[in-house]
Amino acid sequence: AARCARIVESRPFDAVIVIIIGANAVVLGLETYEHLGAATPLLRGLEWSFRAVFVAEIAVRILAYGRRPQDFFRHGWNVFDFIVIAAAFIPGLHGESPILRIVRIARVLRLVRFSPGLRTIVAALWRSLPGVGGFLALAMVTLYVYGMAGWLIFEETYPEQYGTIGRAVLTLFVLLSLENLPELIEQGMALSPWTLVYYVSYVLITANLLLNILIAVIVNSMEE
Amino acid sequence: AARCARIVESRPFDAVIVIIIGANAVVLGLETYEHLGAATPLLRGLEWSFRAVFVAEIAVRILAYGRRPQDFFRHGWNVFDFIVIAAAFIPGLHGESPILRIVRIARVLRLVRFSPGLRTIVAALWRSLPGVGGFLALAMVTLYVYGMAGWLIFEETYPEQYGTIGRAVLTLFVLLSLENLPELIEQGMALSPWTLVYYVSYVLITANLLLNILIAVIVNSMEE
Amino acid sequence: AARCARIVESRPFDAVIVIIIGANAVVLGLETYEHLGAATPLLRGLEWSFRAVFVAEIAVRILAYGRRPQDFFRHGWNVFDFIVIAAAFIPGLHGESPILRIVRIARVLRLVRFSPGLRTIVAALWRSLPGVGGFLALAMVTLYVYGMAGWLIFEETYPEQYGTIGRAVLTLFVLLSLENLPELIEQGMALSPWTLVYYVSYVLITANLLLNILIAVIVNSMEE
Amino acid sequence: AARCARIVESRPFDAVIVIIIGANAVVLGLETYEHLGAATPLLRGLEWSFRAVFVAEIAVRILAYGRRPQDFFRHGWNVFDFIVIAAAFIPGLHGESPILRIVRIARVLRLVRFSPGLRTIVAALWRSLPGVGGFLALAMVTLYVYGMAGWLIFEETYPEQYGTIGRAVLTLFVLLSLENLPELIEQGMALSPWTLVYYVSYVLITANLLLNILIAVIVNSMEE
Ligand code: NA
Ligand code: NA
Repeated sequence: AARCARIVESRPFDAVIVIIIGANAVVLGLETYEHLGAATPLLRGLEWSFRAVFVAEIAVRILAYGRRPQDFFRHGWNVFDFIVIAAAFIPGLHGESPILRIVRIARVLRLVRFSPGLRTIVAALWRSLPGVGGFLALAMVTLYVYGMAGWLIFEETYPEQYGTIGRAVLTLFVLLSLENLPELIEQGMALSPWTLVYYVSYVLITANLLLNILIAVIVNSMEE
Repeated sequence: AARCARIVESRPFDAVIVIIIGANAVVLGLETYEHLGAATPLLRGLEWSFRAVFVAEIAVRILAYGRRPQDFFRHGWNVFDFIVIAAAFIPGLHGESPILRIVRIARVLRLVRFSPGLRTIVAALWRSLPGVGGFLALAMVTLYVYGMAGWLIFEETYPEQYGTIGRAVLTLFVLLSLENLPELIEQGMALSPWTLVYYVSYVLITANLLLNILIAVIVNSMEE
Repeated sequence: AARCARIVESRPFDAVIVIIIGANAVVLGLETYEHLGAATPLLRGLEWSFRAVFVAEIAVRILAYGRRPQDFFRHGWNVFDFIVIAAAFIPGLHGESPILRIVRIARVLRLVRFSPGLRTIVAALWRSLPGVGGFLALAMVTLYVYGMAGWLIFEETYPEQYGTIGRAVLTLFVLLSLENLPELIEQGMALSPWTLVYYVSYVLITANLLLNILIAVIVNSMEE
Repeated sequence: AARCARIVESRPFDAVIVIIIGANAVVLGLETYEHLGAATPLLRGLEWSFRAVFVAEIAVRILAYGRRPQDFFRHGWNVFDFIVIAAAFIPGLHGESPILRIVRIARVLRLVRFSPGLRTIVAALWRSLPGVGGFLALAMVTLYVYGMAGWLIFEETYPEQYGTIGRAVLTLFVLLSLENLPELIEQGMALSPWTLVYYVSYVLITANLLLNILIAVIVNSMEE
């Protein structure tokens, strides 16, 4: 157990696992290209090698906990690792099943665990959410109210865009990217020039909200 | 009256009303989906329950003012609440009339009143406007002058975009999103390569203005 | 002369002129709508009244300088005013001539003179240019080098976009707005997947430059 | 040698070379316009003059090092200059060969050497990369995981966009510009409304990442 603990804490151990995860990601990527011909058995063999390495990794990690292997499951990342690696051995999952594929892709996310830098950034992104929460709530109220108003105005003329509250909110979400602005304004003008009030006010209000989310994030991260 | 005042200031009172407003918003959203079939009477019943709750809410709020019920109308939000809730009872407004629908949607805006966070943000957005005012005035002068210039240059060739000052300003407003830039530049090049001076200078000047509005907002909110 | 000087420095004088310039802008805008019918003589009459007021304004301003009227021309805005107002009386300029129209539109720019806020912003925008100058020079070198490279790669396949250095730089300028990115990448992929190196590197480099222009502007305006 | 050193360090020497490089850039640009007719021999003559000046420049620079000409090659820019200027004389490179053209375009990059301002900016851009490195790594993991997920979801329905991991990552890279957002969402909705979870989460996560890259750059450059 002590020996396993020493292995787990050594840098070469991390380095080897990171390289294997990287190679696994490359193999997964290569498998998306059809007609690989002769390479298919090789890729399959590699997949089995990766599984073997990951199983060994988990085994060593668990053994490192000595007589209290259940403590292994106290850390979120350990649980994630165990599920992602064990799931590949659930009987009935053959090579092409979607769940197995999702599991194999999820393994790549384990990279974040090994990079202190990435872990810090993910934690920072997570911490910055509350500072933005109020603006997001206001953005949702704005999307809802403009969505209902858009449904009232355009329901009959443009059911494709505003036929239900769901479609209206989707249209207005896409409008945050401004991509459909020229088209929507043209549609609105065909109905009535007054629809400009609707679109111009929406764009100005949401641009203002987005601007202030940006500022909230900047000010937050300045204070840290 | 004292009891009403205690109720109005209690947290459960606020919580119940916020939940009712949220449920009201969901019901309004569901009504935008046609062919709900059996659910229609249920939704209508819910609408009547919401009205009852809101009328009771207003009654309690007014009673909380004791012998001076007219003081209730001294606060902006109270006036808004009263109008939005009372309007549903104006005789002659049947279920499908647009004004009734607008009134019912407007009720959702009452959510802002109950969240101190949202109220703060709305107030902050409002306070940040004057700092941006000068830039907006300059943006309007820029839009007007480029609109008149665009009308002079493109009136006869592209009446769709530049036929009147209104259309020209609309075209230039959409150009702030850059969405129609490739198309307008192509149109301009078909007329004369010199129109590039018009478009490139417009994009650079307005990008500069937008950039400085961003900075004005950041600097303003830093100082607060 | 002393009386004229007092008039020029009074607030009502400024207010009247600003209102007249605003009315002038509205009349110019209305003239872009054809088929105004009966209103045409009215608009023409208003234009003549505006001219009369502006001539009177200039006269009072010059008289305010007393025995040294030539000092009037020492200030940039005074020269601009004189040219813009006098040009309307050049013989041979009938109502529909483009030069006269440009002169009439240029009058609206005089609004900036009367607003201390706008003058400050225009001066601030002007001062912020040098801090951005180095980045603009680098952006021009980048546009030129990528333009020449694009011409080498795409000249024969896509002469429309890259036939000459002029067209290539225009294509890459529009690409700064990202609007034509999907189309250009598709074109490039049809030629060779290696063109991705060209487009992805261009987008990353210019995004980086634009980001740093933004920061240069922010840091500059923070220091002021 | 001492005389050469004095020449190299003089301002007129730099000024002349900068002007020649600029003229060279203009000539290269003019050559992209076909049917120049009579001007072709002139342009060819100018190209030969530029070469002569640049060879003389390099010769003077090397001579300035006196008895240790090999020290000339210790500076990166000197090596770049030598390669770019000497490559034009490799036998077998006739006027229209692509390598010669690339070499001639690369000469324009020598402008950066002569401007202390540009050199500072290039160095600053270079230094700002590490601060952004972690976010770029996270962005690449995000692109890969969403690319694989997109391939799982859309491989059979939209092979054009998601047929291989390469195409999927390209589609998602372009989606960073939001240009293809409306089209992709429409495609996804035709398959299943659940694809919205895929696109909305992708846009929010990458927008958040981009925002934080921006902030990392700003905070970095504030500290300098
Ligand atoms: Na766009
Ligand atoms: Na866009």
